[in-house]
Amino acid sequence: MLHQHHVTSGNDNYFFQGVLFSMAKKNAFYAQSGGVTAVINASACGVIETARKHKDKIGKLYAGRNGIIGALTEDLIDTSKESATAIAALRHTPSGAFGSCRFKLKSLIDNKAQYERLIEVFKAHNIGYFFYNGGGDSADTCLKVSQLADQMGYPIQAIHVPKTVDNDLPITDCCPGFGSVAKYIAVSTREASFDVASMCKTSTKVFVVEVMGRHAGWIAAAGGLASDAKTEIPIVILFPEIPFNQKTFLAKVDAMVKKHGYCTVVVSEGVQGEDGKFLADQGLKDAFGHSQLGGAAPVVAGMIKAELGHKYHWAVADYLQRAARHIASKTDVDQAYALGKSAVELAIKGNNSVMPTIVRVSDKPYKWKLGVAELKNVANVEKMMPRDFISKDGYDITEKCRKYLTPLIKGEDYPPYKDGLPQYVRMKNVAVPKKLSAFKI
Amino acid sequence: MLHQHHVTSGNDNYFFQGVLFSMAKKNAFYAQSGGVTAVINASACGVIETARKHKDKIGKLYAGRNGIIGALTEDLIDTSKESATAIAALRHTPSGAFGSCRFKLKSLIDNKAQYERLIEVFKAHNIGYFFYNGGGDSADTCLKVSQLADQMGYPIQAIHVPKTVDNDLPITDCCPGFGSVAKYIAVSTREASFDVASMCKTSTKVFVVEVMGRHAGWIAAAGGLASDAKTEIPIVILFPEIPFNQKTFLAKVDAMVKKHGYCTVVVSEGVQGEDGKFLADQGLKDAFGHSQLGGAAPVVAGMIKAELGHKYHWAVADYLQRAARHIASKTDVDQAYALGKSAVELAIKGNNSVMPTIVRVSDKPYKWKLGVAELKNVANVEKMMPRDFISKDGYDITEKCRKYLTPLIKGEDYPPYKDGLPQYVRMKNVAVPKKLSAFKI
Repeated sequence: MLHQHHVTSGNDNYFFQGVLFSMAKKNAFYAQSGGVTAVINASACGVIETARKHKDKIGKLYAGRNGIIGALTEDLIDTSKESATAIAALRHTPSGAFGSCRFKLKSLIDNKAQYERLIEVFKAHNIGYFFYNGGGDSADTCLKVSQLADQMGYPIQAIHVPKTVDNDLPITDCCPGFGSVAKYIAVSTREASFDVASMCKTSTKVFVVEVMGRHAGWIAAAGGLASDAKTEIPIVILFPEIPFNQKTFLAKVDAMVKKHGYCTVVVSEGVQGEDGKFLADQGLKDAFGHSQLGGAAPVVAGMIKAELGHKYHWAVADYLQRAARHIASKTDVDQAYALGKSAVELAIKGNNSVMPTIVRVSDKPYKWKLGVAELKNVANVEKMMPRDFISKDGYDITEKCRKYLTPLIKGEDYPPYKDGLPQYVRMKNVAVPKKLSAFKI
Repeated sequence: MLHQHHVTSGNDNYFFQGVLFSMAKKNAFYAQSGGVTAVINASACGVIETARKHKDKIGKLYAGRNGIIGALTEDLIDTSKESATAIAALRHTPSGAFGSCRFKLKSLIDNKAQYERLIEVFKAHNIGYFFYNGGGDSADTCLKVSQLADQMGYPIQAIHVPKTVDNDLPITDCCPGFGSVAKYIAVSTREASFDVASMCKTSTKVFVVEVMGRHAGWIAAAGGLASDAKTEIPIVILFPEIPFNQKTFLAKVDAMVKKHGYCTVVVSEGVQGEDGKFLADQGLKDAFGHSQLGGAAPVVAGMIKAELGHKYHWAVADYLQRAARHIASKTDVDQAYALGKSAVELAIKGNNSVMPTIVRVSDKPYKWKLGVAELKNVANVEKMMPRDFISKDGYDITEKCRKYLTPLIKGEDYPPYKDGLPQYVRMKNVAVPKKLSAFKI
């Protein structure tokens, strides 16, 4: 099933489709792509530490400054200039240490020049391994790079390292980055709900928290974990998968407030009305005449105040949720690292166009192992919440969903602190001397 | 200096201003007031555990359900029904375990009936100690109760236990609740800034986070701690103490973005324009016709987009910040407990109308001890940020401010976790049988 790369031993050079290639050990390229997470650097740590352990197979590991843009502009970072201590600290550092980007390669037909440039850069720096750490769009970019050997005669092994807080990649049981956001949302929803419960007699009765997830409600679902058998909390979840119905929603909230005295609403940023319009996109204008983008939470809160008269508070977690390394899930950190490590091991074994995955072995006790997926089955496929993960009325999670989510937020993995603050590392990010002329993207 | 209460030994009963009082040991009343915090329950823990250690002096400890309202409506909770384990767990549980309230007693002249009712309830339940856990308004309520002995002939010792995330109480060096919010904001600002730094090449360049603080900029100042000598971050702070100037603010942000590629703005909810209007109060209306209250962050973000063209993200932390027990400051938790303990000890020593305080002994190493303030000097006095804690241009904190803030966020004090979630305790909150007829407040 896996594409075995053209590896022969005993020769220093070989011809491939008429081009002479050096058989000396190849360098590797690693880059981070799309929205960053609390644990994407843990994957970077896994990639770099594992590459360093296989110096017989992999030469230098270059990181792309700002993702694939670093490859196109020959803006490479020499990770060998970073100390082992600094690389180890990536494991507990949120964000993308080498810079990320939102940039999708067009198809070979639409933009051959970009692919030719990639090959030019790869050749100039003897790059034979391409590790791309991202979500769905990035898997597509990685797939295209993996086809360079077949389509343009440049032998390269491209391995995708999964990452996305949206948890929407197919095949893998879950995506690194998601477990930590889920933990942050579950913990924060529990904490804020305790707060509202204390205040509801004379003040706030409804707390609304907006969470990420444009298309899939995985993160919103995590809000449901805040409530469990031991610590019941009245929570109403608004999923992007369920068209918003103001009438049934308000009835649900009101019933919760009547029964419990208060209620917490977890609203996904991607919730749409039955007309297909985002709730957050209400054409708000402020006194300066600027249009106000976003905020499903204030829209929902305003509705509760106007129609039910309940005092409310609202929060929008935004980047705080996906950057919250301080409350990362240990499961998530471990998996992020393991997938980075696995990507390098897959490359060494000769694989191309694949992505290491998480395979769930059992729920209780939670056991997982590594698997592998072909990139063509991953790229541009979005995994939505199954309907049976959402309660019949559309406002809660089911036991099935709970069983799936719970292990993903399990365990704490605190970063080191000094003077009250987490000690996150910054790379030196030393540039590799350029060998080529500039390229405009 | 301290008002010694009328305590004589050897008699079971005594007359005070013509009324016969039992000298049998008195019960105590404890209540939580105003906005709750991550550590107000740690103070409750200090009060209850200390009262339990002095059973020779203090009988039962009754908690008011929902603050002073519990006293007025004779809705008392018998804390003796809670196990030692449950009380100990209050130390790591955010929110107000007995319910809080926003309710300020009027003056004796304006509403004598309320004070007469309080005395009726205190008498009926043999209450001689009144512990009130709150901020400035609550200190005022506590002061009024402390005067009941002099003004209405009911002997009671009223001790205020300080609490407020706003850190605006006078005399005490800091207020329990603040250190933990400050830590949350400092940590979150650092994390989100790392995130933006990764994205700024092709995406978000400015991140805006809105924090609490209607009048005083203490919490906003904590955002400044995210940046330090080892981990420099371009941060612009909007304090409520500094009138908002759109021109200089935008110039500052733009300069930061030009120099560093990105910028984080920490905006206090209480920021006002030079016209005295809250930035958050922009008369927004959504498509449903509901007016949208609040959100200084979206207003600031919209301004940045419109005038500078930078892509932005914004977050509003709201309750998440003050409920975030998962990232509480150890200094804060220790002080909250110590102040609760001290309140009971002050009562036992015969004090009335006082508040235990934190006295800073040294900055480095940070050392503190307990002090005591007279309530008349605390009630209704707001401690603002000193001007020399804010940089000349009004957008940053000074070294003096940093020296003050740093020890307050120091140390971690993680709650216990199970299945990925913090195990916060809920009280049984067993009601004390009522002895009186109902009272309408």
